[in-house]
Amino acid sequence: MSNTVVRTDSPAPPPAEHLLVSISPAERAAFFPTSAEHALRSVATDIRVVAPDALATSALARTELAVVAWGFPRLDEEMLSRMPNLRLVVNAASSVRSLVSDAFWASGIPITQAGAAMSPAVAEMSLTLTLSLLRRAHRMDHALRSGRPWDDARTIDRAREISGAVVGVIGASRTGREYIRMCRALGAEVRVYDPYLPPDDELAAAAVDLDVVLSDSDVVAIHAPATAETAGMIGEAELAMMRDGAAFVNTARSSLIDMDALFHHVSSGRIDAALDVFDAEPLPTDDRWRALDNVLLTAHVSGATAESRARAGAIVADEITRFLAGQELRHRVTRESLERMG
Amino acid sequence: MSNTVVRTDSPAPPPAEHLLVSISPAERAAFFPTSAEHALRSVATDIRVVAPDALATSALARTELAVVAWGFPRLDEEMLSRMPNLRLVVNAASSVRSLVSDAFWASGIPITQAGAAMSPAVAEMSLTLTLSLLRRAHRMDHALRSGRPWDDARTIDRAREISGAVVGVIGASRTGREYIRMCRALGAEVRVYDPYLPPDDELAAAAVDLDVVLSDSDVVAIHAPATAETAGMIGEAELAMMRDGAAFVNTARSSLIDMDALFHHVSSGRIDAALDVFDAEPLPTDDRWRALDNVLLTAHVSGATAESRARAGAIVADEITRFLAGQELRHRVTRESLERMG
Repeated sequence: MSNTVVRTDSPAPPPAEHLLVSISPAERAAFFPTSAEHALRSVATDIRVVAPDALATSALARTELAVVAWGFPRLDEEMLSRMPNLRLVVNAASSVRSLVSDAFWASGIPITQAGAAMSPAVAEMSLTLTLSLLRRAHRMDHALRSGRPWDDARTIDRAREISGAVVGVIGASRTGREYIRMCRALGAEVRVYDPYLPPDDELAAAAVDLDVVLSDSDVVAIHAPATAETAGMIGEAELAMMRDGAAFVNTARSSLIDMDALFHHVSSGRIDAALDVFDAEPLPTDDRWRALDNVLLTAHVSGATAESRARAGAIVADEITRFLAGQELRHRVTRESLERMG
Repeated sequence: MSNTVVRTDSPAPPPAEHLLVSISPAERAAFFPTSAEHALRSVATDIRVVAPDALATSALARTELAVVAWGFPRLDEEMLSRMPNLRLVVNAASSVRSLVSDAFWASGIPITQAGAAMSPAVAEMSLTLTLSLLRRAHRMDHALRSGRPWDDARTIDRAREISGAVVGVIGASRTGREYIRMCRALGAEVRVYDPYLPPDDELAAAAVDLDVVLSDSDVVAIHAPATAETAGMIGEAELAMMRDGAAFVNTARSSLIDMDALFHHVSSGRIDAALDVFDAEPLPTDDRWRALDNVLLTAHVSGATAESRARAGAIVADEITRFLAGQELRHRVTRESLERMG
């Protein structure tokens, strides 16, 4: 580090880059609490903040670096023409699928994302839902809240412990691996299905076929990406393999699941489910999933912890720093990698 | 092992002891699945099974060993006079408080219990409730089930991860220690309050005063026994020290808590709670706790897993074996130890 850089008595010269931060105010505060905000200001002093719903009427021409999240419009020819100086797009949220276009890929502008920040949060939520289902806590809570007698609640099927339970994981993703680590720390026996798992992977010893994951497990947790290949991979035939009394946890995407088939197996009481993701979001107020006593529902929030947002903010600042220093981005997404990422 | 013992072609001579098993049929099957049933039969072939509600009209005079659980009457002078040959009482359940009497202690008959079997189950349930509260899963589930709009559910306070959270534990009991082990495995920072913790205990470095546990923690979990000393130890003043947005988990006993004071802090929304135990059990169908959206309820079942019951059955068989072999019981309860055990 040179003397110039460590001098703290005078401010560093402001970087020339014009940074657009277009994230809703509530999420912006979560992404950039004091420390990450400071990091962001240290890489670009010329920061312009424009809420997504004000973009249409804002002049964006000076933008060189764009930090975006949910609600940012697709980077199509028109959006790109409004930002002729754009050199980098950083998605503080997860998938860039809704942002990219043929025109964007053709532009060669790099795009990177902070989705890695969410993995520990999603894995923890999946564990939370796993434990609740194994312990039948959701069923008992629903029974007691709906005024059913105490003794009715107590005759709900015997709870199972995670220690010694067989936990089946579909998808050895970053999130799936975090989830497996935690389940194992609590004594679970893990089976994993992932057709892309290399033979020398540390999870290889736990790898089994999909039908074994489904038929052997006390809990099946989805941690695979939503891609053309995984769409509908869990249908009626797969769900029918699950054991009576088993639990199904989905914090990934609903497109992997035939939700009608799942509803059939859950509404009969044969299996319980915890769902954070749905075919229709927002979930309609009269949706069928809202009425089942053996279902635990959350509102597509598994990645949305305070800690996760702050981690994402730090990744954003780090990616910009790397870009400006000419270093390789850690989380760059390409047209090819997006196909497998979901 | 002698040749006589390993011979399997002829049955061992039936032990002379007359064993009474007085546990309700449903619980008996849980306590003694095949393996534990076998163990029980290997220590006493003369096993008489009498459901608790049939005890009044049954002849019990031959009973030498009694295996009991919930619903067994207090061992007072009258009950003892009905079992003049009684030499050992084994409680397959937890506390022996409802079983003992002055007359029983005066008899000198040893009593032992399988409560140790429950600790991992209770600790897991406490962890399950801890995670649910940190993630606000209960609030979201309640909102979605009651038909509130998706976006309402999504604006519930930001969830917290257990990794990095401060978890405060009141009581370094066997259960408290299991809970601490699991919370730490998931990355939590633990503070513990227990006035009886020896200075050289492995938890000593995490030990703090009660007010520090209360004021520092994102979650406060109760794992202390219900004794004369702990009754009402968490009152209005203590609850007022808890941080806004913190979570309160009780899988121990309600007698430790001023439940009116807790209701005050929870019903205002200032803190969330997960409760497995209540002042009145069965909990009345119109009980005030059933109506709060930020409360997660279970029906005094935290120790009642399939695995816990089987562990208890194995402890029962083991204690009887030790007793008949003249060895020290592992879980014997005395009048003195009961005062601190709850």
